[in-house]
Amino acid sequence: MDIAIVGSTGLVGQELINILQQRRFPVTSIRLLASDRSAGKKLLVRGEPVVVQETSPQSFAGVDMAFFSAGSEVSHHFVPLAAKAGAVVIDNSATFRMEPWVPLVVPEINPDDLKGHRRIIANPNCSTIQMVMVLYPLHKVSPLKRVIVDTYQSVSGTGEAAMEELSQQTRTVLEGREATPHVYPHQIAFNLLPEIDVFFDNGYSREEWKMVQETRKIMHAQDLAISATCVRVPVYVGHSEAVHADFTQLMTVEAARDILAEAPGVKVLDDPDVSLYPHPWAAAGHDNVFVGRIRQDVSNPTGGLAMWIVADNLRKGAALNAVQIGETLIERGWV
Amino acid sequence: MDIAIVGSTGLVGQELINILQQRRFPVTSIRLLASDRSAGKKLLVRGEPVVVQETSPQSFAGVDMAFFSAGSEVSHHFVPLAAKAGAVVIDNSATFRMEPWVPLVVPEINPDDLKGHRRIIANPNCSTIQMVMVLYPLHKVSPLKRVIVDTYQSVSGTGEAAMEELSQQTRTVLEGREATPHVYPHQIAFNLLPEIDVFFDNGYSREEWKMVQETRKIMHAQDLAISATCVRVPVYVGHSEAVHADFTQLMTVEAARDILAEAPGVKVLDDPDVSLYPHPWAAAGHDNVFVGRIRQDVSNPTGGLAMWIVADNLRKGAALNAVQIGETLIERGWV
Repeated sequence: MDIAIVGSTGLVGQELINILQQRRFPVTSIRLLASDRSAGKKLLVRGEPVVVQETSPQSFAGVDMAFFSAGSEVSHHFVPLAAKAGAVVIDNSATFRMEPWVPLVVPEINPDDLKGHRRIIANPNCSTIQMVMVLYPLHKVSPLKRVIVDTYQSVSGTGEAAMEELSQQTRTVLEGREATPHVYPHQIAFNLLPEIDVFFDNGYSREEWKMVQETRKIMHAQDLAISATCVRVPVYVGHSEAVHADFTQLMTVEAARDILAEAPGVKVLDDPDVSLYPHPWAAAGHDNVFVGRIRQDVSNPTGGLAMWIVADNLRKGAALNAVQIGETLIERGWV
Repeated sequence: MDIAIVGSTGLVGQELINILQQRRFPVTSIRLLASDRSAGKKLLVRGEPVVVQETSPQSFAGVDMAFFSAGSEVSHHFVPLAAKAGAVVIDNSATFRMEPWVPLVVPEINPDDLKGHRRIIANPNCSTIQMVMVLYPLHKVSPLKRVIVDTYQSVSGTGEAAMEELSQQTRTVLEGREATPHVYPHQIAFNLLPEIDVFFDNGYSREEWKMVQETRKIMHAQDLAISATCVRVPVYVGHSEAVHADFTQLMTVEAARDILAEAPGVKVLDDPDVSLYPHPWAAAGHDNVFVGRIRQDVSNPTGGLAMWIVADNLRKGAALNAVQIGETLIERGWV
């Protein structure tokens, strides 16, 4: 396959390059694209330096598959051009996710939604992917009625500048000086901010609203009641989620553990007595979605579970899932 | 009043000394008590150095009111002795909180529970206090049916050694070296741990279980359905909570804002469009419980609210509430 990566110099772009190699994705050629600011930089691909080019309408000639991870504006402009030029686009931005004709896919969950795609496929939001990876296998056994999720999201979700800001501010605070926020509206070092993306009139942030809408679309559960509070935390990589899930029929902890033990891409780490549970420092760099602290929700003894879900937001939350979509398209002959 | 402070060298003990002065508590004499390790240290009280003494069965002779904040073991041993010696004890440990004959009091909520006390009064857990400060005024108008809370708790809740560990580990990580955990089971710098206190057979941690049981006792709501996930975060001071609350009758955002605007000790900070919401860095050092991100819970449109609650866990979560209990006892003539 002739591949293009738009946003190749970003955190997710670099993970895409790594993961394509690690998984031996059938790459014939790879075109690294980015903004004019990054054009001319060199990135290593299989040990060889490759020059980053500025994304232009001509960038997609001869490209079979294009991975986009350069933000909504870039996707809005270039994704239709890439698709028109004949590439199958796997887009990591929110731009096309809720379009009814665009598949929004987590390959372990709804690979069949890729069938009959129109060359634009959306990669879901990081927080949504890791949650549905755990909820969907349970939902298949006992349909979900209501989900409450509160997130603890790392700064890498914002990008490299945010990771740098966390380091800088942390140093400043440790030196006893006052930190100045640039990327975030308030200090993020040793602090938390319940603000991710813009706010809607209903009081939810766009990030929270993505979790509501994307979860319903991926799981084909349009009526699922779901609410989220999304919070940025001073962690570099790895998103964590506290989830309370109500099911139609009783879901015991034992049943949930058995189901999740079989779920592809999910790993149960759950023995809190010996401090075994997922946490972001340990999850970063790994491909699995980790789940622990699974217990019967005492506020809903007839059918609820509480649990704790952690994953690397740059890998399964973004680059890995996108590559898996590409693999599924190839396997099924849909590309 | 002749006052004793047990655990005077700890974080809460020092806040107690400060707050007694700031609020002009009627102190005649103050006895600073601690473990033998801290005995001999000098602490400033109203600008004068006072020598810390080792706590002993004789420490409470002539003491009118004793504030305990030295952990469960010390309270278990010395609280009954102090009460027997004639002191009214306000105990910050969990030891006596769930005893039916022990008042568990947040003065803005259930001051009348102090009536007829038997000289042992329990100060609730930090996470519980800040949550009930916001939920109770709403509950009085429309009774709560179910509460889901996920916490973001600062390391000062563990104590001074944990604050030091956060600083040390953070420096180590910034230098690119591997951090070694001592106070917590895993690294806390740039990480999160869903473990606070020991775990019970039902999978909940003791901290989570406190939120269930203490909330019911303080609010006189024995049947309230409530569940919590409690998480330690790399923040020095200030606990945050994402709360989803179901009410018996519809509670609109406007009604909730009006009620909370009148609630003593509560401050609404809620204009997310301009990034106005509570966050721990700003809440630390303040007496109020701050609430924002108030919105209609889309997963329960017939009666739910989602919100975000932040407070200084050492002040309203511990020392301030204890001093307010003392003030209430004096005002009502119950001491």
